[in-house]
Amino acid sequence: MNDLIYFDNAATTPIRPEVYEEIKPYLETYYGNASSVYSIARESKKAIDKARAQVATALNAKPEEIFFTGCGSESDNWVLKGVACALKDKGNHIITSCIEHHAILHTCEFLEENGFEVTYLPVDEYGKVSVEDVRKAIRPTTILVSIMFANNEIGTIEPIKEIGALCKEKGIYFHTDAVQAVGHVKIDVQDMNIDFLSLSGHKLGAPKGIGALYIRKGCKIKNLIHGGQQERGRRAGTENVIGIVALGKAIELAMEEMDEVTARLVYLRDKVINSILSQVDYARLNGHPTDRLPGNVNISFEFIEGESMLLLLDANKICASSGSACTSGSLDPSHVLLAIGLPHEKAHGSLRITLGYQNTEEQVDKLIEVLPPIVQRLRDMSPLYEEIKNKK
Amino acid sequence: MNDLIYFDNAATTPIRPEVYEEIKPYLETYYGNASSVYSIARESKKAIDKARAQVATALNAKPEEIFFTGCGSESDNWVLKGVACALKDKGNHIITSCIEHHAILHTCEFLEENGFEVTYLPVDEYGKVSVEDVRKAIRPTTILVSIMFANNEIGTIEPIKEIGALCKEKGIYFHTDAVQAVGHVKIDVQDMNIDFLSLSGHKLGAPKGIGALYIRKGCKIKNLIHGGQQERGRRAGTENVIGIVALGKAIELAMEEMDEVTARLVYLRDKVINSILSQVDYARLNGHPTDRLPGNVNISFEFIEGESMLLLLDANKICASSGSACTSGSLDPSHVLLAIGLPHEKAHGSLRITLGYQNTEEQVDKLIEVLPPIVQRLRDMSPLYEEIKNKK
Repeated sequence: MNDLIYFDNAATTPIRPEVYEEIKPYLETYYGNASSVYSIARESKKAIDKARAQVATALNAKPEEIFFTGCGSESDNWVLKGVACALKDKGNHIITSCIEHHAILHTCEFLEENGFEVTYLPVDEYGKVSVEDVRKAIRPTTILVSIMFANNEIGTIEPIKEIGALCKEKGIYFHTDAVQAVGHVKIDVQDMNIDFLSLSGHKLGAPKGIGALYIRKGCKIKNLIHGGQQERGRRAGTENVIGIVALGKAIELAMEEMDEVTARLVYLRDKVINSILSQVDYARLNGHPTDRLPGNVNISFEFIEGESMLLLLDANKICASSGSACTSGSLDPSHVLLAIGLPHEKAHGSLRITLGYQNTEEQVDKLIEVLPPIVQRLRDMSPLYEEIKNKK
Repeated sequence: MNDLIYFDNAATTPIRPEVYEEIKPYLETYYGNASSVYSIARESKKAIDKARAQVATALNAKPEEIFFTGCGSESDNWVLKGVACALKDKGNHIITSCIEHHAILHTCEFLEENGFEVTYLPVDEYGKVSVEDVRKAIRPTTILVSIMFANNEIGTIEPIKEIGALCKEKGIYFHTDAVQAVGHVKIDVQDMNIDFLSLSGHKLGAPKGIGALYIRKGCKIKNLIHGGQQERGRRAGTENVIGIVALGKAIELAMEEMDEVTARLVYLRDKVINSILSQVDYARLNGHPTDRLPGNVNISFEFIEGESMLLLLDANKICASSGSACTSGSLDPSHVLLAIGLPHEKAHGSLRITLGYQNTEEQVDKLIEVLPPIVQRLRDMSPLYEEIKNKK
């Protein structure tokens, strides 16, 4: 797999070698249950305390505001259902956007089936939520605003600080699903007035199966997973020591390297975007041109199917995606691309390239070399493209 | 840690070397998101399919009836809340026992706060639920019976087959929390008429952070974690490939070795019980003498505190517990020991030894050697014991 070019870092990432080294002692030797009293268990507890501090530092939060979960989706479910349940006597209205991850959208649908009302804000052509729209949507019964930090498909970064300030002014809880943003862009829960924040380990070099929820001290929320006294009685289940240690190390590394990695990825990202758009006609960039994740490229190509592109890239040992991995079981076009105004046929022909710290310029150059002929080959099979070409 | 004697296998287990070998390729090379389409992702998907079949085989279920979760507690929460939500128009009554794990009990309390009614059945002096009690507790509004397969503290195995037959006769869903039983005793969801079953990987040699829920085909249950299309749309969140592969391998090994390991552990278990009870007065075995988990020993010693015993055992490099690790954050005496009729002071002086496949007779002999003097040393510090001795 050494010659593989992996450009799907928004779907998941390889375990970073430094993270693997960090978890090895817990894979091999320190297997104790962190809640037990003997010495080997204290090693697990110490490791969890350290990781909690690492995650807190990355967000400018306090360690006691970090709660480990099984994944980013669990964190999203927890905050929506937990706040809804805790504040149901205060109100039943939630504000979110129509380009959220399905862990938010489908949880909102569940809440709607159970007596809650949800406003799904539209976005502009770049995928941006308008702060003014949030303000207008607020009702006396609004108990929570949940807007993602950065979109997982098109990479657009939302005006989180402005929405946070508005929610603070109105006294409404503010949650952000930052699964795609943590470790990639600067986040400060104090400065940005974020009350709840979801994150996931496997998007930044930790294994799959570990997430966290930041809960601002004092914010009311019910448990999602009831049971034992783990996580100060707020999230039951024996602590996933290996996942927690990995997440702590991965987030620490990401913070240390952020400036350098961001500069490099922005350069590579823009090189891909500019090269492809200049070489291929009937193509457009999806998402905001500058307010976007450092590693995210999302381009729609008319007259072709995204899936065919992926298969031909795979044959060239390049891993990419047509959108979110989480929806690959579904044949529907991306709700995000539809929301920014793409018609169905364009939404179907989109390609997401998400770069990670480990990607090189050589790999990017390979993509720039092989992609245009792939697009051309597929278009040559398309009767619609033939027609357009003949009209020209 | 090589000289450590680990007798707390009900709290958690070391990762089995064979399991570690099985997950190494996924730690090091095959990091793909199982929902993606390219080749490295297909490796993840294949691995998950294999593990799902391994788990299904162990329970005599079908692969499509196995759903991976983040832990046993999540599985318990899912089944109780998911069935409650799916059947709320049919009824609002749930039957369980008072010695369940807190993942069941605290979830039931949550459901009680939300309009459901729960019957907590008592148990006899050995911790056994009576099938007749279950029958009497059934109402026209009963939607679910949830009785654990084997108790995590005292090891008592419940009459699951009889309860399953009763539930089938009455047309009521039957769930069993089998976290302590899977891989340790024979389970057949067909023969035992089990509709839902919770299990956890770290109790049988897989890492912490992976669980599963068996859902009989056709049984109605709502999702607990909404979002992406993973697990056929029933449990969102990127699949924890490493945890899933580990669980599959661990359960397969446990099934292969069950007859041999059971015979060996029952011998060791009874050796501990008989030696300690014959050497130490004012001591009693908790749980059923024969219908108990092969590796479980739970003994109450009068006039001493369990925690002091654990610290002195730890000083002898022996890891044991006074009860469930999940409740160690709480000072309350064990609800299980109170339920089988122990007064508070006896419940506080209990010791749980849980043996695993890796424990040796030499280790057991060491325990038998050091424990009685530890008990004596602690009793010598007890004014109450002094008094009793003088009366003799």
